[in-house]
Amino acid sequence: MGVRLGPNQYGKAEIRMVTVGRDGPVHRLRDLTVSTALRGRLEATHLSGDNADVVATDTQKNTVYAFAKQHGVHELEDFALRVGRHFVDGFEHITGARILVEEHPWDRITVDGSPHDHAFSRGGEERRTTAVTIDGDSSWVVSGLSGLVVLKSTGSEFHGFPRDEYTTLPETEDRILATAVTARWRYRDGAAADWSACFAAVRRALLETFANKHSLSLQQTLYAMGEAALAARDELAEIRLSLPNRHHFLVDLSSFGLDNPNEVFFAADRPYGLIEGTVTRDDAGDPGLAWHTLEAF
Amino acid sequence: MGVRLGPNQYGKAEIRMVTVGRDGPVHRLRDLTVSTALRGRLEATHLSGDNADVVATDTQKNTVYAFAKQHGVHELEDFALRVGRHFVDGFEHITGARILVEEHPWDRITVDGSPHDHAFSRGGEERRTTAVTIDGDSSWVVSGLSGLVVLKSTGSEFHGFPRDEYTTLPETEDRILATAVTARWRYRDGAAADWSACFAAVRRALLETFANKHSLSLQQTLYAMGEAALAARDELAEIRLSLPNRHHFLVDLSSFGLDNPNEVFFAADRPYGLIEGTVTRDDAGDPGLAWHTLEAF
Amino acid sequence: MGVRLGPNQYGKAEIRMVTVGRDGPVHRLRDLTVSTALRGRLEATHLSGDNADVVATDTQKNTVYAFAKQHGVHELEDFALRVGRHFVDGFEHITGARILVEEHPWDRITVDGSPHDHAFSRGGEERRTTAVTIDGDSSWVVSGLSGLVVLKSTGSEFHGFPRDEYTTLPETEDRILATAVTARWRYRDGAAADWSACFAAVRRALLETFANKHSLSLQQTLYAMGEAALAARDELAEIRLSLPNRHHFLVDLSSFGLDNPNEVFFAADRPYGLIEGTVTRDDAGDPGLAWHTLEAF
Amino acid sequence: MGVRLGPNQYGKAEIRMVTVGRDGPVHRLRDLTVSTALRGRLEATHLSGDNADVVATDTQKNTVYAFAKQHGVHELEDFALRVGRHFVDGFEHITGARILVEEHPWDRITVDGSPHDHAFSRGGEERRTTAVTIDGDSSWVVSGLSGLVVLKSTGSEFHGFPRDEYTTLPETEDRILATAVTARWRYRDGAAADWSACFAAVRRALLETFANKHSLSLQQTLYAMGEAALAARDELAEIRLSLPNRHHFLVDLSSFGLDNPNEVFFAADRPYGLIEGTVTRDDAGDPGLAWHTLEAF
Repeated sequence: MGVRLGPNQYGKAEIRMVTVGRDGPVHRLRDLTVSTALRGRLEATHLSGDNADVVATDTQKNTVYAFAKQHGVHELEDFALRVGRHFVDGFEHITGARILVEEHPWDRITVDGSPHDHAFSRGGEERRTTAVTIDGDSSWVVSGLSGLVVLKSTGSEFHGFPRDEYTTLPETEDRILATAVTARWRYRDGAAADWSACFAAVRRALLETFANKHSLSLQQTLYAMGEAALAARDELAEIRLSLPNRHHFLVDLSSFGLDNPNEVFFAADRPYGLIEGTVTRDDAGDPGLAWHTLEAF
Repeated sequence: MGVRLGPNQYGKAEIRMVTVGRDGPVHRLRDLTVSTALRGRLEATHLSGDNADVVATDTQKNTVYAFAKQHGVHELEDFALRVGRHFVDGFEHITGARILVEEHPWDRITVDGSPHDHAFSRGGEERRTTAVTIDGDSSWVVSGLSGLVVLKSTGSEFHGFPRDEYTTLPETEDRILATAVTARWRYRDGAAADWSACFAAVRRALLETFANKHSLSLQQTLYAMGEAALAARDELAEIRLSLPNRHHFLVDLSSFGLDNPNEVFFAADRPYGLIEGTVTRDDAGDPGLAWHTLEAF
Repeated sequence: MGVRLGPNQYGKAEIRMVTVGRDGPVHRLRDLTVSTALRGRLEATHLSGDNADVVATDTQKNTVYAFAKQHGVHELEDFALRVGRHFVDGFEHITGARILVEEHPWDRITVDGSPHDHAFSRGGEERRTTAVTIDGDSSWVVSGLSGLVVLKSTGSEFHGFPRDEYTTLPETEDRILATAVTARWRYRDGAAADWSACFAAVRRALLETFANKHSLSLQQTLYAMGEAALAARDELAEIRLSLPNRHHFLVDLSSFGLDNPNEVFFAADRPYGLIEGTVTRDDAGDPGLAWHTLEAF
Repeated sequence: MGVRLGPNQYGKAEIRMVTVGRDGPVHRLRDLTVSTALRGRLEATHLSGDNADVVATDTQKNTVYAFAKQHGVHELEDFALRVGRHFVDGFEHITGARILVEEHPWDRITVDGSPHDHAFSRGGEERRTTAVTIDGDSSWVVSGLSGLVVLKSTGSEFHGFPRDEYTTLPETEDRILATAVTARWRYRDGAAADWSACFAAVRRALLETFANKHSLSLQQTLYAMGEAALAARDELAEIRLSLPNRHHFLVDLSSFGLDNPNEVFFAADRPYGLIEGTVTRDDAGDPGLAWHTLEAF
């Protein structure tokens, strides 16, 4: 009937791995969620159920755990590159891989004013992320963060938008601006950078720009955040930001004889605005497969 | 510093809308979640905070509600096309739109053996979906379903996979196969089809194939499901399936002197396998922007 | 310093267990989440870390799986009673137990008009529940359901409530009434009843009453539902209902020159009303520990 | 048929309220989720739908917002007491109330080394909580925290537990101990204490004890944490702790020729142990209704 297999991938999703570095009394804790996906010449299993080329997803999981012990985790990006490269180089019909890693932050518990050697508390819902794509000999690295929830209680306006027959929103010169930042940035070089230093610098640029930039629209804030991130580290080729606009509606207290000069708000769940955009260097170059299968816009 | 705005979109996400058709004593209930996203020449707001081209996301929301009243919802795909076309045709700098709709099913409550006129019970977590993309005069329709959880208690094998140094999974000739189907299919014609009839036929093909196909791998099941869907309705150009492999591990009861011939299982949460693939007609044609910004693989 | 151990319990929570009855080609599927909790003279482990009386939670889990194989699951209530009794009778310092079971529904997939022998689809988020409490030689059974989401598109009014300085809600003679029913009923006899027949009759009474009862308040609906449940089965001593009022707000379309005669609604997430109440027989008798540690009001 | 209304309550759940203190350039942010519940002589609405005594849940919500403006939020406990007292004193048939408040933490964003005046980042999923119960002229205050996730990478053993026919768990002298602390403590005086100072002292005692106490069982850790909390502040009468044991299983790498001396772990989702217990002063006194309708054990 003239049908065939199109794009496909398979792997093990959300492998929860915690590692403890214990080469001394001061333990180091890493808390990762790893997802693997392999691509290649996989027609056989799809068409006939012949699994001779199917590296079992259970094997993929074992490899992740074993590599953490054999090689250590160290930088997320290097770990993901190593895991992906292992599959692409090691199996004839596996020609590509996508490895996602999320790191969940932990802080040391403070006891009597000092950080404890081996006791930790979870550091919130923010995650550091990386998405490594390998295709043959090429590789791309897209790193980022998610779950960074921020809010400004002033310094945000929204006006001058078109008013058609369905427009009821009043203009405002002072509103709460709140969002949960998801950022992903593509590195120019898909093999090596000072990953952690870049992460720290980009995160700082995003936060400081959100705080300092007087906002006339969330789009303007987004662009300024992206611009600041690219300015902070030359290793970045482009950055994508996804910023839900978490609406805080001023409660109308006038029925109760009360003013409400931006003091009491209702924080709504849904719907929410969703502002997504890319800031790219003019010389960013071809992204290749860097963004392939990542959520995009 | 040589940076510029790259791809971007913005809109209102997860507009929760329930409509009641009440042109007689027998009410008709629709429960939708709608997300809008607009694209266009939006440099001004990003670069300078000039919002003259920014159709407010609040206005987008209002339009969705107003259109439901003015035109009715009827077919999801037609509703989404109408909403998207309104923005692209009505605003000079808006050149594209992506409208997502999810429908949540409700059943009539049975009272004394008969369906009630205006009382309903929620029909589970499965959702019917559509994603309409508009760019200038062109449009594309990708419809689907998600949250269709299915399980086979036999009729599934997995063996013949490669065994490397990290492989410990035993081969099996009888296992539970369980998944939560997410399917998205692209229509050949992005403007008109018998949408509901297609949905019903594809859903039935997916379910029956899952049930009947003896499975040697979840990939084989995926391909067979996609093939059956394309066979069921000529209007489909291609179909993408995302099938998490929800592992059910046989509990080892041997320590307690008990056999466990595939009777008692532990249903694991994470990690899970994730099998994703496309089945496409040979003459499927260029997808254009149909899949743009949808989760892909 | 004059402190001591107060009430306590411990166990294994959310044991996910799927069983397949395969004594013929037509398989029977059960999908359960079981939580165990034990009580007793457990000062030693709390005060000194002496675990001689601590039946490990891992052992509790193993016992659940082993009992499913040895004795079968059959009725949830009987299974829970058997598991709880095992711990209380078998360990000297364990004097009480609370066993919670939730059952997740599955339907057979229909193929060519007939139910399939071994392929199933998940039947929504509703769950059948039981909570069995054992203390020494006594036992109590509280069964129920949760996640039964229902909606009436008319037949619900709300007016006549007091109006103070903080009241702005308009009175209404026609609104949507929607809720997610959580019901728990206590059996008179904590050891034996026709559990499944009771469940079916109570569930039917709840649904039919929700549908048929013209509602002047959700409280009135709650009481009528409870009354109908008690009328349906004499085995019940009392029933507790927890009914979130899932608000559906009529969208104001008047700015757009549109009427909205109860046709287009915004379904809000939060906040929601929460109506909780008990209907009890006059001769319900002492509940003893039946409700101990269950959510109450 | 001899049935009647039993215990009941109703209110507005999960009112999301954000307040901004803006009496100068340095804004103060509070992020609260408030749930109200009223009790009283409410037979009329249940039995006949007469709502003359039903303070609408919408009115309850309005009152929370209005009180935040009129009186400020300040201490959670005082705010909850004020809100609850308003309903009980103001409406003849309302005789009791339960007000729950959760506070979500925010930190100031650091810009150039200094805390920003009006830009904040969300401080994780931990919440400060209070549950105030009012009945006639009496009141009780139970405060606490939830979502405090902590982990020790060593300093935890578990052995000496009984071994029956269903026991397979090996004894261990070194394991990861991880939990998400939910704590609730009852104040001796249900009207006044230095609430925030108590909260800070109890939180610190819980964290430091978790970190420092060498653990032979999670029960022992729980008791020590509770004891430390009571020692920290004399205002507390008793404390209840609910500690899920979030299992971290050592990955068996021996098949790959690798040792795993407590370095690489699988963090499991379900099932989990659940350890719950109370530490109480000998002179704690009658709790009255303090714990009524709160989750208990």
